[in-house]
Amino acid sequence: MENNLPVNVREYQELAKKALSKMHYDYINGGAEDEHTLRDNIAAYGRILLRPRVLVDVSNIDMSTSLLGYNMPSPIIVAPTGSHKVANPEGEVATAKAAASCNSLMVLSFSSNCRIEEVAASCDAIRFYQLYVFKKRAVSATLVRRAESSGFKAIVLTVDNPMLGRRERDIRNKMVAPDKPNLEGLISLENLDTTDGSQLAKYVRDTMDPSLSWKDVEWLKSITSLPILVKGILTAEDARKAVEAGAAGVIVSNHGGRQLDYA
Amino acid sequence: MENNLPVNVREYQELAKKALSKMHYDYINGGAEDEHTLRDNIAAYGRILLRPRVLVDVSNIDMSTSLLGYNMPSPIIVAPTGSHKVANPEGEVATAKAAASCNSLMVLSFSSNCRIEEVAASCDAIRFYQLYVFKKRAVSATLVRRAESSGFKAIVLTVDNPMLGRRERDIRNKMVAPDKPNLEGLISLENLDTTDGSQLAKYVRDTMDPSLSWKDVEWLKSITSLPILVKGILTAEDARKAVEAGAAGVIVSNHGGRQLDYA
Amino acid sequence: MENNLPVNVREYQELAKKALSKMHYDYINGGAEDEHTLRDNIAAYGRILLRPRVLVDVSNIDMSTSLLGYNMPSPIIVAPTGSHKVANPEGEVATAKAAASCNSLMVLSFSSNCRIEEVAASCDAIRFYQLYVFKKRAVSATLVRRAESSGFKAIVLTVDNPMLGRRERDIRNKMVAPDKPNLEGLISLENLDTTDGSQLAKYVRDTMDPSLSWKDVEWLKSITSLPILVKGILTAEDARKAVEAGAAGVIVSNHGGRQLDYA
Amino acid sequence: MENNLPVNVREYQELAKKALSKMHYDYINGGAEDEHTLRDNIAAYGRILLRPRVLVDVSNIDMSTSLLGYNMPSPIIVAPTGSHKVANPEGEVATAKAAASCNSLMVLSFSSNCRIEEVAASCDAIRFYQLYVFKKRAVSATLVRRAESSGFKAIVLTVDNPMLGRRERDIRNKMVAPDKPNLEGLISLENLDTTDGSQLAKYVRDTMDPSLSWKDVEWLKSITSLPILVKGILTAEDARKAVEAGAAGVIVSNHGGRQLDYA
Repeated sequence: MENNLPVNVREYQELAKKALSKMHYDYINGGAEDEHTLRDNIAAYGRILLRPRVLVDVSNIDMSTSLLGYNMPSPIIVAPTGSHKVANPEGEVATAKAAASCNSLMVLSFSSNCRIEEVAASCDAIRFYQLYVFKKRAVSATLVRRAESSGFKAIVLTVDNPMLGRRERDIRNKMVAPDKPNLEGLISLENLDTTDGSQLAKYVRDTMDPSLSWKDVEWLKSITSLPILVKGILTAEDARKAVEAGAAGVIVSNHGGRQLDYA
Repeated sequence: MENNLPVNVREYQELAKKALSKMHYDYINGGAEDEHTLRDNIAAYGRILLRPRVLVDVSNIDMSTSLLGYNMPSPIIVAPTGSHKVANPEGEVATAKAAASCNSLMVLSFSSNCRIEEVAASCDAIRFYQLYVFKKRAVSATLVRRAESSGFKAIVLTVDNPMLGRRERDIRNKMVAPDKPNLEGLISLENLDTTDGSQLAKYVRDTMDPSLSWKDVEWLKSITSLPILVKGILTAEDARKAVEAGAAGVIVSNHGGRQLDYA
Repeated sequence: MENNLPVNVREYQELAKKALSKMHYDYINGGAEDEHTLRDNIAAYGRILLRPRVLVDVSNIDMSTSLLGYNMPSPIIVAPTGSHKVANPEGEVATAKAAASCNSLMVLSFSSNCRIEEVAASCDAIRFYQLYVFKKRAVSATLVRRAESSGFKAIVLTVDNPMLGRRERDIRNKMVAPDKPNLEGLISLENLDTTDGSQLAKYVRDTMDPSLSWKDVEWLKSITSLPILVKGILTAEDARKAVEAGAAGVIVSNHGGRQLDYA
Repeated sequence: MENNLPVNVREYQELAKKALSKMHYDYINGGAEDEHTLRDNIAAYGRILLRPRVLVDVSNIDMSTSLLGYNMPSPIIVAPTGSHKVANPEGEVATAKAAASCNSLMVLSFSSNCRIEEVAASCDAIRFYQLYVFKKRAVSATLVRRAESSGFKAIVLTVDNPMLGRRERDIRNKMVAPDKPNLEGLISLENLDTTDGSQLAKYVRDTMDPSLSWKDVEWLKSITSLPILVKGILTAEDARKAVEAGAAGVIVSNHGGRQLDYA
């Protein structure tokens, strides 16, 4: 592949493997437990077969769509993923600029390495903000307020990790929790026990709230006028509940195979 | 395998791999994108199981059949494939002679490295001519007229590539579009941009017509009295449409896994 | 994995492979015949998919259950397996202490390397006793009486090996039958023919009773007041028969793939 | 495996591979064409799962059965296979003695390396004779008469190779047709063309009769009073026809994957 651009995503993945440390590559590329769901997320695409129709005029192909009223040239958006400085020194600012250049939409992760305000100021992509609910509700409320002030258009509430997925690669690598500048002054990260295993797992255990339930969606609605998307729904029952709780939409996701394995 | 003839097609394939350059072997042997359809085209044969009946007199086995009224000793014909000079200096003339020696039928590819008239003069195989419809309809019309004059018996209209399949091997190999002597004087091939990736893809993009539709079958019928076979049909709906549009028949094909992957 | 604790059971298995002799590792890890059932026992877990529900308060997770009236913090117990001194010099006493430390339940194998009384005295885990029925019924009766006197709470009657599974690894390794101190004075182990193959297979052949049938469950009930669990049931018909025969419960098991392969 | 007896049939196969020349091992072990049926013949056993029932008295296991009125201790017989001298200098005589020592039944192959009379005289196994029908019917008639005189009990008419399966390994190895002493004086084997490929294939082509049909079963019945088993039936339709034609039974077989592949 010398002197050649990659021709598919697998070749990008190989380049990433060479460019990143093992700890960071595993953090980005790994999944929970046996990584069954991770593997099946990819294999599942191979089970989708197309029925090609012929002699249809395809000189003008229009894949544009709209999401919560925002128009986009294609139905592909940037999902929320954390810690972009692991892969690029500009972090989420670089990602936002790339999204803006495609007129696409970016969901900024709560685990961003760049401050909310910094990403907002860097360009004018359409941006949604992804939120976890903390044991201290005031932390989440502050983050929502900052996203609103910075012109974010929706809140994406991730609901599939009351506990962090058991990512065995991170445990082995003693993965260090990356910087979270948006939490400075909100949560003390100092007294984390780092003697054993993944600091990331420890960190989430100390801050995330396993008692999260549907009534917290109502609380979130009460503190913001932004539309709320519930991310991590995997059953029809829960999709119905989300609508009843006033969500503007749901995002069907198994968290990239990083949370509950065999889901 | 020293000193031995190949005993099955896989062994011919291994010999071809040794005889050809990587670029040309990949061009002949490769498929589109993930090559899922390419692999499944072969695996699908393994899923066909036979129910042998016994004590049937098989001293005279007759596999002969007829196609558009032409008799053949077996239901196996030479499908249209391009650029035979890549594999043999005589090109499509050699293939036509082989077909003639088996009393079989050859479909001459639009991408032939030999001129239509040259192939016609070389032997008397039954020959069909395979056509794409160009942005300039006059080019296609000229090719049809030349095939008619040279005694070809039918037009095979290939309809499954309004755009060329994304053949990643060709992109990596920067595959050079082989000579197309039948297009000399009809299309200018000079100003093709060759700075990046497969010239073949670029070439098709500049000449093929993505607006092709069923009304072009009617147009083709209006300019020739030869029967028209529509190649690349994969759904019952389209087979029905082809008959309604006046096709003499359809050829069910996924283009050897070279066009739309996962079809 | 230097300096790291294992993060899953497969990594424990790798450590065990390094720590044990081949003969003993194969004895613990191997299965019967082609080891089809052994492999499928593991693969079967991968076929169980979960349907995650979200936004359910999981701050208090209670996996506690009860078995024959004994409360346990989780539905995981120590199944009966033989010859623990192969892996740990303290043998079943070490296992019982581990079970006690988790408030779990241990089923002591008939093939224990520690005496019944010794295990009972070592700690206060809840303990069931696993029994085979010998050709000499008096041997089984004596073992039951000793388990009762030592405070065991139930008898687990294993019914799936009227003959020992053909464990080819043990035959190849000429596996030596480990000590069975509980049988001292009850059965003579001296005249076993050890000229060929697994001594273990020979031993079982000389002592186990292939004529075992449902009426022996009745006999067992007549000599003990402890509840009886029938282990090794694989069909609904036999589960029904077990209840009719007065069993307190059944244990569905294919003996870890160590008895009848392809079950 | 030094100094150890094989513990399963796969280990016997490995020993055979070491003991035989490649040509002879391939002849015995190979199948037709892609060897799909050959592989699936083995894999099919893995798809048969058992439903074990427990607490059934198994102290007396009786697998005895009878075939055409002949009692045998188990339902396992020696199927007709040719050219045993390839593997053992005593040839089919050795096999017959082994069958006799198990009170089992042997079907002597038409392609035996030992004369019919020699096998008959060597021991008193129950013996059936396997027959092909030759272009010269008189050859088959002679063989049947000799089997009858030698005390054979039934004729097994193999009907699944009007043409020999295309065994690519034999072609590559230029497999030499082994001696067929039973045909001496009946068929001239001298003028076989051996310039190319498997002599075996050539031999069968020159002697077997592709016009064989159900009326030949009637002919066979007219020349012998022995019961006739039709071997190679794979459909219910043909089983019914065999009974109507007066066969005493059918043998369901795909010829060990050596004839029609993908059957």
